[in-house]
Amino acid sequence: MNTRTDKPATLAIVGVGLIGGSIGKAVKERNLAHRVVGIEAHTESAQWALDNGLLDAVSDRVPEDADLIALCVPSDLVASWVMDLADHPGLVFDVGSVKGPIIEAIQEHGSVPERFVPCHPISGSEKSGPQAADGSLFDGCTVVITPLEHTSDLAQQACADFWQALGANTMTLGFVDHDAALAVTSHLPHLLAFAFMEQVEESHLALTGGGFRDFTRIAAANPELWWRIMRLNRGALAQALEQYSQNLKSLAAAIDTDDEAQGLALIRAAAAKRQAADKAEN
Amino acid sequence: MNTRTDKPATLAIVGVGLIGGSIGKAVKERNLAHRVVGIEAHTESAQWALDNGLLDAVSDRVPEDADLIALCVPSDLVASWVMDLADHPGLVFDVGSVKGPIIEAIQEHGSVPERFVPCHPISGSEKSGPQAADGSLFDGCTVVITPLEHTSDLAQQACADFWQALGANTMTLGFVDHDAALAVTSHLPHLLAFAFMEQVEESHLALTGGGFRDFTRIAAANPELWWRIMRLNRGALAQALEQYSQNLKSLAAAIDTDDEAQGLALIRAAAAKRQAADKAEN
Repeated sequence: MNTRTDKPATLAIVGVGLIGGSIGKAVKERNLAHRVVGIEAHTESAQWALDNGLLDAVSDRVPEDADLIALCVPSDLVASWVMDLADHPGLVFDVGSVKGPIIEAIQEHGSVPERFVPCHPISGSEKSGPQAADGSLFDGCTVVITPLEHTSDLAQQACADFWQALGANTMTLGFVDHDAALAVTSHLPHLLAFAFMEQVEESHLALTGGGFRDFTRIAAANPELWWRIMRLNRGALAQALEQYSQNLKSLAAAIDTDDEAQGLALIRAAAAKRQAADKAEN
Repeated sequence: MNTRTDKPATLAIVGVGLIGGSIGKAVKERNLAHRVVGIEAHTESAQWALDNGLLDAVSDRVPEDADLIALCVPSDLVASWVMDLADHPGLVFDVGSVKGPIIEAIQEHGSVPERFVPCHPISGSEKSGPQAADGSLFDGCTVVITPLEHTSDLAQQACADFWQALGANTMTLGFVDHDAALAVTSHLPHLLAFAFMEQVEESHLALTGGGFRDFTRIAAANPELWWRIMRLNRGALAQALEQYSQNLKSLAAAIDTDDEAQGLALIRAAAAKRQAADKAEN
């Protein structure tokens, strides 16, 4: 995998859940590697992925000859995998939703390998497990690459090429900026939606429409995964929540005091921004 | 319109926006009235609805011979229409999202006519105007009917029949219970989504996925309409927000203090409820 046109001979996927499984499926469908090997502690998931053509083989460790290693384990397990693979000649990337704590956890034990490229495909789903794997999951999605200063340019480029071959757009961002932005765009909405569902009672369900379904969809996400993400990014998340609470108070106060000029201005700005987001996408 | 099988000779639609226009379109498509007359202050909308077959005629007042009158104006304009039509022989219903303030506003000036049936089709959309009219908007949607004790049974039944002919399911609920439930299932999510969009910056947009899009979709709703709804239901909305703020604080505290037992329990309960909501629907 030395040039942009080479494809990896062997891709190893550590953690064959929704993301790992989708990478395997996409790579197999697009013939982007000669061999895809899965490493997955949950043997039923591993077998299912093998039986359903997401993988060519299952192994209990990363093969020596793997030239690309995708760490698709939960964020808080990434650092120990990176350290274990410090001497492996392959290029390593992860798919964690929070980058700072992973990098800091590695740095506590030494330097971050220059062949490790921190990545985050913004392709979440409320589904989980290899059974939900989707070969087009990364089509049109954004993958943020958050390299360190000493991360190998070649490794970054190879990673970007790999993601682009899966249909994704790649962008580069510092890991601190990434974590602050994702706290706003992803982690805070999940926190708000989880909290919201607490007060929904069964008798409410008949009285819901499309707005409710859309607003709460992310609350069906994997609880263990999201507990970990919110814990890992708790600093940036707390800041985002603090700003949110202020904004919510202002709007609630405008409603309470019938301050139409203020309330309507806030809602109009929100609606205009949301509409602009749709336009930016189309 | 004396029996369940009769169809209205003349349907009058007051306010030909998304809901009024969709009623007109659905009625025309299903041939549920001999004549559909629109009353709409905005002449361009009225002409568009006429030109596009949502209406048979446009008028500046409700025809004397209308036997069914759909008030599709904003909630805070419903009461004065009901009072103006107090002596009209036709059956009158509205489509307002908040029922208590409409009923109370009428009661301030006299008794609520027994031929007025308060209705709420839970079929919102972030779109507005007759151009967004959809003849299948009410297919499978729930229409809540909130009658008073003295509301005519025949009028209620005729209304239920009409909505069911448009594809909707109808249910009956007291108006206080309706407003409290809708504060939770609809008005609070809009408030939360509007407030959330305030902190979203343009640089965030590249860093969003499907979760963000779903969660914020309702923030693109019509600002004037939603300001009015939140103002009208401010009492129930404030109560819902108070409960929400407590739940949000508990979850944020669990994250902050790394109280995994508590935090995970809250998230699991939320996810299970949201998944159950999907199952109840399918």
